[in-house]
Amino acid sequence: MKRNYKKAVLPPDKIRKFLEPGPVVLVSSKWKDKTNIMTMGWHTVMEFSPSMIGCFITSANYTYEMIRKSGECVINIPTVNMLDTIIKIGNNTGAEIDKFKKFKLTAENSKTVKAPSIMECYANYECRVLDKSMLKKYNFFILEVLFARAATFPKYPKTVHYRGEGVFMVSGKTLAFPEKFKPQNL
Amino acid sequence: MKRNYKKAVLPPDKIRKFLEPGPVVLVSSKWKDKTNIMTMGWHTVMEFSPSMIGCFITSANYTYEMIRKSGECVINIPTVNMLDTIIKIGNNTGAEIDKFKKFKLTAENSKTVKAPSIMECYANYECRVLDKSMLKKYNFFILEVLFARAATFPKYPKTVHYRGEGVFMVSGKTLAFPEKFKPQNL
Repeated sequence: MKRNYKKAVLPPDKIRKFLEPGPVVLVSSKWKDKTNIMTMGWHTVMEFSPSMIGCFITSANYTYEMIRKSGECVINIPTVNMLDTIIKIGNNTGAEIDKFKKFKLTAENSKTVKAPSIMECYANYECRVLDKSMLKKYNFFILEVLFARAATFPKYPKTVHYRGEGVFMVSGKTLAFPEKFKPQNL
Repeated sequence: MKRNYKKAVLPPDKIRKFLEPGPVVLVSSKWKDKTNIMTMGWHTVMEFSPSMIGCFITSANYTYEMIRKSGECVINIPTVNMLDTIIKIGNNTGAEIDKFKKFKLTAENSKTVKAPSIMECYANYECRVLDKSMLKKYNFFILEVLFARAATFPKYPKTVHYRGEGVFMVSGKTLAFPEKFKPQNL
């Protein structure tokens, strides 16, 4: 089952809200006339402003060269209703199939990059490659989020988080204790 | 409420099982006679073997210099029963207090590093600093997991995942579909 989320702009310095909990994400890319999507679990927030994300993408992956050459991608956050598609995307290569077509996903125009956003995902973070210096040694891209959108409802997405060996954790309940934090630590 | 988990060795190339889902972790360190603990949310798995973790620790943090100088730390994975302690650790500085003593946590001897492990946590990943080249520009440590232990029960920990602004997501149910993966992608 796929949803059509109604989305609003999310300031780049707030993108941690849906990424820091550690969900599996779908990375969309475009190079020349070709688009692709990959499933990614190894990523981290690195800075608020500029809004930075670090992520590991093996050079064996078809997406690696597409991002390296285009200098762009979109980090899309899918929800548990898309789990079957998430797994299929991670078990097929863009060298052989058109993943948007094969998995019936909608490629929306992004605002700041040529790489398309995946309409069916809860959030879309448009990124440019900020630093390639860690690529050769560690396959580690440092991205800057240029523009981001996220669904306005539900308040938090039901995301999937990978443990390896085909096992996923689904995001659970919310606990909020802002009163226990010093303001500068929120 | 704190638990005493019974633990077993976890091979370093399997540590993703509890880290890749993206929980808040407690980082323990030791430099000279001083120990410290910090709460950390910005981390990612970077490689299976050698087992690598990348993490962002601001240089304003007391822990930063302790890890930089000692070249070691332990990544401890706490569970939701420790949430109050997790928040307090993140809202106090080791420059002023002894966090093990103040928060009644047990510093266990680690096997491969001088930094202590936190007994009350579900898992303990003993790490050495592998690469400091990203420190100056990005406050990004690249760690190698030398030795790891994890609780044998429950099978998966009830972890907390931070969204910013005092809001946490608690890990939810497990979904397993190994049959949908190609063996090399598990």
